[in-house]
Amino acid sequence: MSKSTHDRLVALRRDLHRHPEPAWREFYTTARIVEEVERIGVDELHVGPDALNTDERMAVPDDDVLDDWYDRALDAGADPDVLEDLRGGFTGAVAVLRTGEGPTVGLRVDIDGLPQAESDDDDHVPAREGFRSENEGAMHACGHDAHATFGIGVLERVKESDFEGTFKVFFQPAEERVGGGRAMARSGHLDDVDYLLAVHVGLDHPTGEVVAGIDGFLAVSHFLAEYEGEPAHAGAKPEAGRNTVQAMAAAIQNLYGIPRHSEGETRVNAGLVGGGTATNVIPEESFVEGEVRGETTELKDYMKDHAHRVLRSAAEMHDVDVDIHTEGEAPSAASDRALADIVYDVASATDGVDSPVESDKLGGSEDATFLMQEVQDNGGLACYLAVGTDHPGGHHTATFDVDEASIPIGIDVLADSILSIAENEP
Amino acid sequence: MSKSTHDRLVALRRDLHRHPEPAWREFYTTARIVEEVERIGVDELHVGPDALNTDERMAVPDDDVLDDWYDRALDAGADPDVLEDLRGGFTGAVAVLRTGEGPTVGLRVDIDGLPQAESDDDDHVPAREGFRSENEGAMHACGHDAHATFGIGVLERVKESDFEGTFKVFFQPAEERVGGGRAMARSGHLDDVDYLLAVHVGLDHPTGEVVAGIDGFLAVSHFLAEYEGEPAHAGAKPEAGRNTVQAMAAAIQNLYGIPRHSEGETRVNAGLVGGGTATNVIPEESFVEGEVRGETTELKDYMKDHAHRVLRSAAEMHDVDVDIHTEGEAPSAASDRALADIVYDVASATDGVDSPVESDKLGGSEDATFLMQEVQDNGGLACYLAVGTDHPGGHHTATFDVDEASIPIGIDVLADSILSIAENEP
Amino acid sequence: MSKSTHDRLVALRRDLHRHPEPAWREFYTTARIVEEVERIGVDELHVGPDALNTDERMAVPDDDVLDDWYDRALDAGADPDVLEDLRGGFTGAVAVLRTGEGPTVGLRVDIDGLPQAESDDDDHVPAREGFRSENEGAMHACGHDAHATFGIGVLERVKESDFEGTFKVFFQPAEERVGGGRAMARSGHLDDVDYLLAVHVGLDHPTGEVVAGIDGFLAVSHFLAEYEGEPAHAGAKPEAGRNTVQAMAAAIQNLYGIPRHSEGETRVNAGLVGGGTATNVIPEESFVEGEVRGETTELKDYMKDHAHRVLRSAAEMHDVDVDIHTEGEAPSAASDRALADIVYDVASATDGVDSPVESDKLGGSEDATFLMQEVQDNGGLACYLAVGTDHPGGHHTATFDVDEASIPIGIDVLADSILSIAENEP
Amino acid sequence: MSKSTHDRLVALRRDLHRHPEPAWREFYTTARIVEEVERIGVDELHVGPDALNTDERMAVPDDDVLDDWYDRALDAGADPDVLEDLRGGFTGAVAVLRTGEGPTVGLRVDIDGLPQAESDDDDHVPAREGFRSENEGAMHACGHDAHATFGIGVLERVKESDFEGTFKVFFQPAEERVGGGRAMARSGHLDDVDYLLAVHVGLDHPTGEVVAGIDGFLAVSHFLAEYEGEPAHAGAKPEAGRNTVQAMAAAIQNLYGIPRHSEGETRVNAGLVGGGTATNVIPEESFVEGEVRGETTELKDYMKDHAHRVLRSAAEMHDVDVDIHTEGEAPSAASDRALADIVYDVASATDGVDSPVESDKLGGSEDATFLMQEVQDNGGLACYLAVGTDHPGGHHTATFDVDEASIPIGIDVLADSILSIAENEP
Repeated sequence: MSKSTHDRLVALRRDLHRHPEPAWREFYTTARIVEEVERIGVDELHVGPDALNTDERMAVPDDDVLDDWYDRALDAGADPDVLEDLRGGFTGAVAVLRTGEGPTVGLRVDIDGLPQAESDDDDHVPAREGFRSENEGAMHACGHDAHATFGIGVLERVKESDFEGTFKVFFQPAEERVGGGRAMARSGHLDDVDYLLAVHVGLDHPTGEVVAGIDGFLAVSHFLAEYEGEPAHAGAKPEAGRNTVQAMAAAIQNLYGIPRHSEGETRVNAGLVGGGTATNVIPEESFVEGEVRGETTELKDYMKDHAHRVLRSAAEMHDVDVDIHTEGEAPSAASDRALADIVYDVASATDGVDSPVESDKLGGSEDATFLMQEVQDNGGLACYLAVGTDHPGGHHTATFDVDEASIPIGIDVLADSILSIAENEP
Repeated sequence: MSKSTHDRLVALRRDLHRHPEPAWREFYTTARIVEEVERIGVDELHVGPDALNTDERMAVPDDDVLDDWYDRALDAGADPDVLEDLRGGFTGAVAVLRTGEGPTVGLRVDIDGLPQAESDDDDHVPAREGFRSENEGAMHACGHDAHATFGIGVLERVKESDFEGTFKVFFQPAEERVGGGRAMARSGHLDDVDYLLAVHVGLDHPTGEVVAGIDGFLAVSHFLAEYEGEPAHAGAKPEAGRNTVQAMAAAIQNLYGIPRHSEGETRVNAGLVGGGTATNVIPEESFVEGEVRGETTELKDYMKDHAHRVLRSAAEMHDVDVDIHTEGEAPSAASDRALADIVYDVASATDGVDSPVESDKLGGSEDATFLMQEVQDNGGLACYLAVGTDHPGGHHTATFDVDEASIPIGIDVLADSILSIAENEP
Repeated sequence: MSKSTHDRLVALRRDLHRHPEPAWREFYTTARIVEEVERIGVDELHVGPDALNTDERMAVPDDDVLDDWYDRALDAGADPDVLEDLRGGFTGAVAVLRTGEGPTVGLRVDIDGLPQAESDDDDHVPAREGFRSENEGAMHACGHDAHATFGIGVLERVKESDFEGTFKVFFQPAEERVGGGRAMARSGHLDDVDYLLAVHVGLDHPTGEVVAGIDGFLAVSHFLAEYEGEPAHAGAKPEAGRNTVQAMAAAIQNLYGIPRHSEGETRVNAGLVGGGTATNVIPEESFVEGEVRGETTELKDYMKDHAHRVLRSAAEMHDVDVDIHTEGEAPSAASDRALADIVYDVASATDGVDSPVESDKLGGSEDATFLMQEVQDNGGLACYLAVGTDHPGGHHTATFDVDEASIPIGIDVLADSILSIAENEP
Repeated sequence: MSKSTHDRLVALRRDLHRHPEPAWREFYTTARIVEEVERIGVDELHVGPDALNTDERMAVPDDDVLDDWYDRALDAGADPDVLEDLRGGFTGAVAVLRTGEGPTVGLRVDIDGLPQAESDDDDHVPAREGFRSENEGAMHACGHDAHATFGIGVLERVKESDFEGTFKVFFQPAEERVGGGRAMARSGHLDDVDYLLAVHVGLDHPTGEVVAGIDGFLAVSHFLAEYEGEPAHAGAKPEAGRNTVQAMAAAIQNLYGIPRHSEGETRVNAGLVGGGTATNVIPEESFVEGEVRGETTELKDYMKDHAHRVLRSAAEMHDVDVDIHTEGEAPSAASDRALADIVYDVASATDGVDSPVESDKLGGSEDATFLMQEVQDNGGLACYLAVGTDHPGGHHTATFDVDEASIPIGIDVLADSILSIAENEP
């Protein structure tokens, strides 16, 4: 990679880092990606609603939240024409190169930030070097700024190569809420994809390591249960209330008691809960926000069925109402070994990669699995790889950062893998 | 009371004490009562099914249990002809005297024993003097042997007196399970009763005390919830079970959490619970036997509604089935002051009563309330009185006993009150 | 009461209404009271820390909250010299008149507002007539603006009368959090009080009613339990967390299950609870804010002991830490009939009172009970009375308001009762 | 195997089947084994306490239960001299052959029956052919009668062979309660064992299948928590009780909520629970009998620590006492492949074996793991194999039975494997 290309990509990554935007609020980010894609030049560019199945979005924030972030993006200098297309939280883009006969290869990168305040300590490079988040309370604490940069860098490399076939880059929004994968997977743009790569930086692998095939995605489903009862004075009329905090407590106790499953790992967590208004009022409202997971999609569904039953029965038990929403969801998936082998071979031959790794387990969830599954269901192959990066703080913490030396490594491994895939059609 | 009458009544009481029979199993007891009533001679005698509304019995044991006790009664020498009428657990009797114009006055006494083993300690009079229970595991530990004796003694006294009117003695079965009161209250025999007395010995009042009017009956409802799920090997297939012990635990936790009520006292207790078979089997069956109470019948119903909802929702929560039975029930009631005043005056003038008391609170439950309420609903008056007796052990314990000196006192107070009531028609 | 006095007092009440200040933040209010008391002229005036036992305050907010309200009071024009004395949340005052030989009579009024937004509907008189709260989110929704006005009005009336003895007005802060009563009760200023009156407007009694003696105060104790555990990724390392939401749920379930008590009413409520940060993080922190009550102080203590045990054991059960704070507390108390009789007689003879009532039950809690108990423990008498007022909305709601016609009625009844008490020394 | 040997072994198995004896009650069984071993003739025979580390027994029944079974064994004709050694529940035996230089090879077989009533249906072979259990309520429902027979048959075969080395047969008691493995493992008799085989019939494998190496033993720990509180009348004095059923319910709810573990499978079950005496009594006693398991011994310990904490805190929460006993325990273990390969080769060449299987998972628990671990910790090898048998009913059911055709197969595979091991010393 030339010095100038390198500098341009690092500058892009830092610009995105300065403007982290959580799920469905990637207005600035999408506009900036569009700008870069248009600079490169592609055969098709699908932006916002055209990149999604708009009925399939999950975990979309309220309109006023969306509007607020829209205005911030405008203030930060995003292109108003692009923004107009994104209004209402329709973010993300799909860029397409068509260059002769050959297979259709896809690359999926996610682009959203997190609701996490960023460190302002001098030890934290973005703080010291002036590209710390300008959106207080939000941060690229999981490296999706690097992922978006990978997408641009690889697009550029493939465009300049002798690639034969169709190449698509999926700039996916709302991964952190597992809210965007399904909408992009069902957009139609995956229908003709024969091979799909997806990528993540870090994951506790240092710069110089590349993991060719990640497995062990836990399928996941987020839920929000909102209880509504009746308030009453706790001293004068305790019997007149319908107590949502009692319902919430019964639900929590029994959620964690969903039976373990002999066919694989399951998880449940009531991660954010609350209720009531004052000590002397029988609590009228409460909520439980949580998640279930499973080693397979079936195990996730087993947990989800049980969890929803518990949440519902707890309401019935205390004579209160409950609304249960599924806030985000992702299936399980597995990397195809045939693709992973190509990635492994490419990585082994790539400058800067000193420790290629055949495979590893994620142990968490990711909605890239929706896109992987879509391709696999159509008879294609999919592979999720990790590009190591020295990250001082853990993922999702205030001091997370990407070692920029890993950016060209990631682009090289991805671009060369794509060329090899198109040539070998495994 | 003549020495011979006294001796005969004490002998009767001891005979009943030797043959304690729990709820709906009072075969020997009823036969013995019938024998005494026939000796005295009455105008009507309604036995077993004729003394009850047979559809209204509650807490009736299984047939094999009934049959077992039936056979015991036969073995103990009870009259087979009388027993034949009682077959199937239709116990109890109503004796009627009709002697000229006047009001109808009733006396209700209960006759059942308890499933409580009796002390065989020499300090325990029945053990020492040879009239300890011959039905191992059963005992007259609440003095209903004395109550039945009161009924016979008073019947005799009223028969011999110049009483004018109708006098009925209700020998009620199954009070300890609050299972018999309703069936007798709705038998029709209460319909013409203008005044009703009911009586209890002891209640922590010593010999020589008589409490003219007892109040503070808590309305009560017993429940039995039986859960049924699916067993599974807890190690190999935990997900294949439907766990009734988890349901039971959720039910118990939330039963005790039914909100307190500002209009009066409420109670709840899961008094007998169990479930499962072995450590390595997901428990297929469990049960919760318990009760709710209220200072009023309405408060009891409030508790019952909530308890049943909790019991049901706990089943739903763990995907198991539940059957909920109401096993016994009694309303609240209050003694009419006008009757209590007569009892108080009579007691004050009775030999052996040194401490007449105007009123006291029961703090427990009693299904005499069904009969009291029936009379009161028809415009009559009812009063529940206590005849003190020195009892060495507490009610429902292995060393409970009645001081036989209180038997003639009780008969005198009751008989004279009945005569005074008939004369004064308050 | 003269027109000018009336107008002045109504203006005072409206000024206080415009500046509602919650517990321990009554900076403007205290300064305004001091101003009025100094206008009237008294023999002693104890302000802020001098009016309190400063070690006995409960439910004091954090310093930054106090500072914020301090600055508001300054901005609203409160006397900076008075404010200086109150810094740190030492609010309230005690005014003393000494006029010859005679008993010491006290009047306790509370002065704090509530964290409740006030209606801006035109039907709401303070909104329509321009004295709606200027402290957004805070409101005099329980009439303590009228209580403070009673204090000033009565002080003025007693000063002008032929009262012989000592008269003290206790302007008590932080009643709504039951946080100020104890600190004022133990200030020393109650030690010589022979007779104490306390007063409340409204309580669902209309203008024209006066209740001479209020009873049925439930003793109360507020608690705040803060749980601290360990976060962990709920998918990748569920075993690494120490889960405070599980602890919280176990605590709530078992708090409501504290056994009922046969000696009187008890209450428990987990009124405000919360925990956790995100669906995929094992919750590191949670809290339960709640209260227990009892018909007597002993019953409250029974509930408090049980509640604290449950809160502690729930932490132990899930291997997390817990801090339990008692946030506010008040004993039970009873109005002395001898004082209530005087109030009743006075009320019966007062213009504007058309329905004097002998007694009523509060059914809630009040920390005037600390002051009443202090006086009673010293051999004095205490009485809590209610001055009816037509209030369109309920207490503690956005549309609560005081009918200003009840202000002179309250002042007349209180002042005349005080004169009668001093004269009759019941 | 000769017809006469075959008939003798089948007769032995049927005799043991007629006298099933649960954990630590194998009096008849041990005496019968001793008789057979003495008939064969061995170099050492350690019986009862000499075969065990007597301090390490778990899940030993009460003395009166032991005495009762002792008397039954005597009545059934067991040798009184042998019985004398076993008094107090010290059952089991270790038989030792020493025949020249060579390694020490062990065979562990378990010998206890189950508390399970046996079918008396004519379809059930033991019923039809007259060797159904004579101990009503007890049954060899898991094939340990065949295991003991394997032990005798193999001992005889090895004695008659040209085996060089030391051969030990461990007749282990109390496997079903995972109570005997530890005591035998730590008896000292394992210290010099270089190779250990353990065996089970059936496990859903038909006659003709042999599984050479079983893995997937879940480590297990049984617990019995006994709660003791205070009874009280649930209506009159609810506050006077200390309620063990509330404690039990809190324990159950939170046991099932022990967090899942990312390092492997865990299990928990409250398999047998109960409490209380009557609906109107606050329950004084309750118990929870259950188990935890883990894919590794560490995971079992993780579960055990959490379970005991929950059981204890639940007592503290409701102010009751609790005793927690570990009733039985077994670690995890794995079959050594080197031994399993020998077994596989031997089985493949054995008459009657048509489907040799390399390995399978148990999915349950077994305390042979104590002996396996002891050998492995000393540098030896261990292997657990399954000898298929057509069993009409499932393990632990009333119609379980062993196809006697599998008895000579098992003996051949075991004996030939032992010879091959001694020869090859893998």
